[in-house]
Amino acid sequence: MTIRPAPLRLIPLFGLPEIAPGSDLAGLIRDAAREQGVALAGCVVVVCQKIVSKAEGRLVDLADVTPGELAREIGAEHGRDPRQVEVVLRESRRIVRRGRGVLITETHHGFVCANSGVDLSNAPGPDVAVLLPVDPDASAKRLSDALSTPAGRTPVVISDTFGRPWREGLVDVALGSAGLAPIRDDRGTMDRAGRELQVTQPATADQLAAAAGLLMWKSAGVPVVVIEGFPFEGDGTVRRALLRDSATDLFR
Amino acid sequence: MTIRPAPLRLIPLFGLPEIAPGSDLAGLIRDAAREQGVALAGCVVVVCQKIVSKAEGRLVDLADVTPGELAREIGAEHGRDPRQVEVVLRESRRIVRRGRGVLITETHHGFVCANSGVDLSNAPGPDVAVLLPVDPDASAKRLSDALSTPAGRTPVVISDTFGRPWREGLVDVALGSAGLAPIRDDRGTMDRAGRELQVTQPATADQLAAAAGLLMWKSAGVPVVVIEGFPFEGDGTVRRALLRDSATDLFR
Repeated sequence: MTIRPAPLRLIPLFGLPEIAPGSDLAGLIRDAAREQGVALAGCVVVVCQKIVSKAEGRLVDLADVTPGELAREIGAEHGRDPRQVEVVLRESRRIVRRGRGVLITETHHGFVCANSGVDLSNAPGPDVAVLLPVDPDASAKRLSDALSTPAGRTPVVISDTFGRPWREGLVDVALGSAGLAPIRDDRGTMDRAGRELQVTQPATADQLAAAAGLLMWKSAGVPVVVIEGFPFEGDGTVRRALLRDSATDLFR
Repeated sequence: MTIRPAPLRLIPLFGLPEIAPGSDLAGLIRDAAREQGVALAGCVVVVCQKIVSKAEGRLVDLADVTPGELAREIGAEHGRDPRQVEVVLRESRRIVRRGRGVLITETHHGFVCANSGVDLSNAPGPDVAVLLPVDPDASAKRLSDALSTPAGRTPVVISDTFGRPWREGLVDVALGSAGLAPIRDDRGTMDRAGRELQVTQPATADQLAAAAGLLMWKSAGVPVVVIEGFPFEGDGTVRRALLRDSATDLFR
């Protein structure tokens, strides 16, 4: 039997206040949704990493950072603030590529991205760096638990914009997820000609993040997007489901 | 001034017949949209590569393929049909990685993907391989021109599912586009604190493809998704806007 997907609606949430360490992010999302008349039960909520990190206090004042030798070397080579480079290195497990002012690292979580995800834009101060959440899946779980009600589950995806090899531009990907399976396993199902599908495993959480990203450009002030009508199922973390084991990765 | 994005609606189109070489794809999409009461003017239409390739006759019967030495070697090594490998090699400019039954190639267009995008699933016959369109941007342009009316432009994105390094699962990306800028250039705009955004260039066409992919899983029979409410602007091709020049790519 073919299950026909229904239309999806992507709703940008506005009006969240500036988020600070200790902010009740779930409460603020609930309030903003209520204000806009958006019901969250049964919807997927995509939250941009920046406000999660701020609420969790993942901020470093560069005034407190003393760059080491490597950070000073890279800073000089690429014309970058060595204190920021130091923070990037501290957040990383290894440097994947270095060149043309770009520092691609593997974070302690296992994400491969520019600057370990450390960002100065939309930060609370001119010399404040925002780091990725320590455990984005746990952050998603806390938000999902707080937003879900007896009326229905509210899965959460925490997103960030990453570059990628071979293609220009950034796309939003999932850093963390809770309340849905981050990957859809279509293996074993049949194509329309009855041939078994072998390698069809859409990275659902990443597609949800990318879809939300269409409404999240930085100047718009939309840190949360509600996705209505997506038939989520299962559960799982980005770390286990989407981060490829280095043993099976052809690109490490 | 902050421009607040409006909600988006993603509408799956059903009921397209099996597409064959010479099918009037634009006409069939228009008919399916009319049948479902969907107006296309001002909407982005995302079309999966498979039906574009079929309409354009990009099919190869493996019975007509004589594998060369390399194809026979790779086929034997990875337990794959050497005729299919031969087709993959013919569609490629070079092999990027080879291992664990996976053949990552760079296509003549410049896409880096598994098997040069050559696919046997949802093909019109058991031994028929479907190739990528020769020029997906031109395919998108033809469709966009045919679907646009005096009532409004209808940009088109042609999508395919690609794997990526470091992350499991597949996401839909844009192979071709017409009628919109594939990348959004936010450089020069300010963040909420008035700091200039440096590297914020969302790959809009890829995000549109990924969003549509949420409704396009292969067993569902949804080859076309209409995206309503997206504030597209500009114009451009995927080849020029999204394929990174090898001179500036850290991963070649």
